Amino acid sequence: MPKKVDHDERRRLIADALMRVAADQGLEAVSLRHVAAAAGVSAGLVQHYFHTKDEMMSFALAAVSERSEARVRAAVTALGSSPAPRLLLRTVIAALLPLGDAAREEGRVALAFLAYTAVRPSASAELRPSTAQFVDFIATLLPTGDHRAAAGLLALMEGLGVYLLGGQYLPDQALDALDAHLDLLFSQN
Amino acid sequence: MPKKVDHDERRRLIADALMRVAADQGLEAVSLRHVAAAAGVSAGLVQHYFHTKDEMMSFALAAVSERSEARVRAAVTALGSSPAPRLLLRTVIAALLPLGDAAREEGRVALAFLAYTAVRPSASAELRPSTAQFVDFIATLLPTGDHRAAAGLLALMEGLGVYLLGGQYLPDQALDALDAHLDLLFSQN
Repeated sequence: MPKKVDHDERRRLIADALMRVAADQGLEAVSLRHVAAAAGVSAGLVQHYFHTKDEMMSFALAAVSERSEARVRAAVTALGSSPAPRLLLRTVIAALLPLGDAAREEGRVALAFLAYTAVRPSASAELRPSTAQFVDFIATLLPTGDHRAAAGLLALMEGLGVYLLGGQYLPDQALDALDAHLDLLFSQN
Repeated sequence: MPKKVDHDERRRLIADALMRVAADQGLEAVSLRHVAAAAGVSAGLVQHYFHTKDEMMSFALAAVSERSEARVRAAVTALGSSPAPRLLLRTVIAALLPLGDAAREEGRVALAFLAYTAVRPSASAELRPSTAQFVDFIATLLPTGDHRAAAGLLALMEGLGVYLLGGQYLPDQALDALDAHLDLLFSQN
C-alpha cells in the first residue's frame, strides 16, 4: 500500500518553518526558498501548499493564534471554576503578552504580520472580526460593560506587547502598567 | 567653481525614498536597489551614504520622528499658552496617532521598523531612552503623577496606532477609547 500523505501535517510543518524564519530573521527573510530550507523540503513542495506569500503569512498567523489560544485556555483552566472577572481578564491578557519564550516568538510573528498587512489592507480584513469579538468579550467582564473602555484595554495590551518585544518595557513594568489600568477600570461602577 | 554637494540634503532625499518604499510596499521591499530607483539615484550613491540596511532603517526612523514631532509642536502651539494638562495630553496623543494621510505613512514606517527591530534587539536600543522620556513627560501631566499609569497610556496610544493602521479600529472608535481612558485617569486624585 502506498504511504498516505497527511496534507494537514505538511502544511503545519511548513507553517512551523515559516514561523521560525520570521521570528529569527524577520519578515523580509520569509521567502519560498528560506522556508523550504528551514522545513527541510523542496521549494516546489512549499509552492504546492502555498501559492502566494499572502497565503503563507495567513496560515502562519492562524497557527500563531491557535497556539496563543491554547496558552490562554490552559491559564484560564488553571483558575478553576467561576474566577472573578478581574482575575479572568488579567489572566487572559498576561497569557497573551510576550512574556515567555514561546509567547515572544509568536509575538514577533504577529508583529511581522501586522507590519505586512499595514501596507496590504485586504490581508488584514480577516483580523477585524476577531478584534471586534475580543472587545465584546472584554466588555462583558468590565463592571461598566463599556465598549470604549474594552477597546482601550485591548489597545493597551497590544501596545504593551509591542514594547515588550522591542525591549522598551521590561516584563515587570508592563505588568505594573496593566495592573494599574485594571485598578482604574475595576474601581468604576 | 564646482558645485558643492549638500550631503545632508542627499541623505534626506534617500531617506524620503526609503519611507515611500516602506510605506507603499512594506519593509521587505526596502533594498538598496528599490530605494535608489525611488530616489532617482544610483545604487552606488545610496551605498555611499548608508553602508547597511540597519543604517538606512535608523535614519528613516529618525526622519519619521522629526516629522511627527513637528506635527505635535504645531498642534500644541495652536492650543495657545498654558493649556490644561488633559487637553495638552489629548492633543499630543491625537497628533501622534495615524489618523491623517501623513501620520499614516509615518506610522507604517514606524511599524515596519518595530517589526524589524523585534528580531534585532541591538537596533531597538536607541528607542528605549525616548520611550522612558515620554513616560516621564506623560506622568507630569497626570493628576496622580503615576508612572505606571503613564506607561499604560503610552502603550494604549501605541496599540491604538497599530489597530488604526491595520483597520481593526476606525478613527472614531480609537478616539473614543482614548477619551474614555482620559476620563478615568483625570477622575483620579
